[in-house]
Amino acid sequence: MKMINGVAGEALALADRAFQFGDGVFRTLRCDAGGIRFWARQYAKLAADCAALGIAAPPREVLEADIRQLAPQDGAIKLIVTRGESQRGYAVPDACTPNRVVQVSALPPVWPAEGARVRWCDIRAGWQPALAGVKHLNRLENVLARREWSDPAIQEGLLLDRDGHVLEGVMSNVLALSGRVLFTPRLDDAGVAGVMRSVVADVAARNGIAIREKVLTPAAVMAADRLYLCNSLIGLVPVRELSGQHWGVHALDSVLQAGLAVMTEEETWYSSEP
Amino acid sequence: MKMINGVAGEALALADRAFQFGDGVFRTLRCDAGGIRFWARQYAKLAADCAALGIAAPPREVLEADIRQLAPQDGAIKLIVTRGESQRGYAVPDACTPNRVVQVSALPPVWPAEGARVRWCDIRAGWQPALAGVKHLNRLENVLARREWSDPAIQEGLLLDRDGHVLEGVMSNVLALSGRVLFTPRLDDAGVAGVMRSVVADVAARNGIAIREKVLTPAAVMAADRLYLCNSLIGLVPVRELSGQHWGVHALDSVLQAGLAVMTEEETWYSSEP
Repeated sequence: MKMINGVAGEALALADRAFQFGDGVFRTLRCDAGGIRFWARQYAKLAADCAALGIAAPPREVLEADIRQLAPQDGAIKLIVTRGESQRGYAVPDACTPNRVVQVSALPPVWPAEGARVRWCDIRAGWQPALAGVKHLNRLENVLARREWSDPAIQEGLLLDRDGHVLEGVMSNVLALSGRVLFTPRLDDAGVAGVMRSVVADVAARNGIAIREKVLTPAAVMAADRLYLCNSLIGLVPVRELSGQHWGVHALDSVLQAGLAVMTEEETWYSSEP
Repeated sequence: MKMINGVAGEALALADRAFQFGDGVFRTLRCDAGGIRFWARQYAKLAADCAALGIAAPPREVLEADIRQLAPQDGAIKLIVTRGESQRGYAVPDACTPNRVVQVSALPPVWPAEGARVRWCDIRAGWQPALAGVKHLNRLENVLARREWSDPAIQEGLLLDRDGHVLEGVMSNVLALSGRVLFTPRLDDAGVAGVMRSVVADVAARNGIAIREKVLTPAAVMAADRLYLCNSLIGLVPVRELSGQHWGVHALDSVLQAGLAVMTEEETWYSSEP
């Protein structure tokens, strides 16, 4: 199911700058039984990412109307906002009207409850402070990183940055627990600051677990008491194995999951009456 | 005029990975009176860029047939090769058939014969050795850099890299003449290695002008005897002004232009009999 500017459609003009330059942003939302998790945060992040690129974000109610039309029950919803269409060349014309796309796909396979198996990627994450944190459509790095493994038993790969510090997963953010402090990489120069990362930070704060942004070395990650990955589709998933290092159940696993369940319920928006 | 996989078309499936991730490469060719400049080099670079991303490049004769169908006389031809279509997610399915697009646009305005006026961009070029040199579809940096100025009297902006070294123009490569040596930035960690850059290197070599890749500081660029920009549409254009620094005609200007004219004639492919 796909909708372009409020109308069912499967194809977009070649002139769209998303196709020509990756000139746009996107969001991935989880929808369960018609409830869209963390919709208010997702919209706020979409609007912030649009602003970072100088794209006019569609009003929230416009996107909500699109979603209502699609009436998803369970699925992964991808929202894409492009800068719009233009002639050849990087210059943006004065009149450039954003295109918005809403796609609904089946939810991906659940990651193992006992934890994810994870590898280190060879490719380094790029450096670009002007785009850091933004979930934009220039995602070749993620594509190349994901191509490094085909073993379905491996759920995720971790990326280092130019300086050899841990940055993020190919499709998730990383949190390393030490005592009662969750450390997560700074994303000033690279990476995507996911909505679920902000949710987990709030869950931690509510439950007396400190959360801090920090430069994380691979050694610090390997020495963590527990490692977690998060994104909007998987939620928060512990890591069972990373490159030969194994972790078992941690006392805070259930604290975090229970806190996340509470916050998920608080922050779910229903596009139609249940 | 646009052609998708050999058939006239204006729209591509949303499922195409170029739209979702910028997962593809492109080339910009100049066509004059039906002659496509440096076609053999352009195709070789397209194939190399496809290989760098693990995309199967369309055979040369297939693209030539597309171009013959379009029968352009004068124009800018953009060739795009995408990895193909897939479902949600970064993972590339085993069966992923590239899509190819050929677009013809009007040639952009000629840059002033007396030289271009150029500025320094604020945004830095990103660092990513895995993509360096490749003309891929992740071009948000170029878009943001081009948005920094709207004065039509300024033709180009120059980008520094993370380390503050001169990397390239938003849409061109840079060459700085000192004595009889043309220095051009190394592109190991960022930037696009344009076809015209390789042509100019050959023109220089033929005419007894040395060409060397080097780390170039902004100070070295400002102190150059002459500064040139090149790409496939503008050819080789001297810089008249960069941020208050002015350059006049240099004795080697005409040597380089004459050499380029010879090589252009040698390496033009006619898609139809003239």
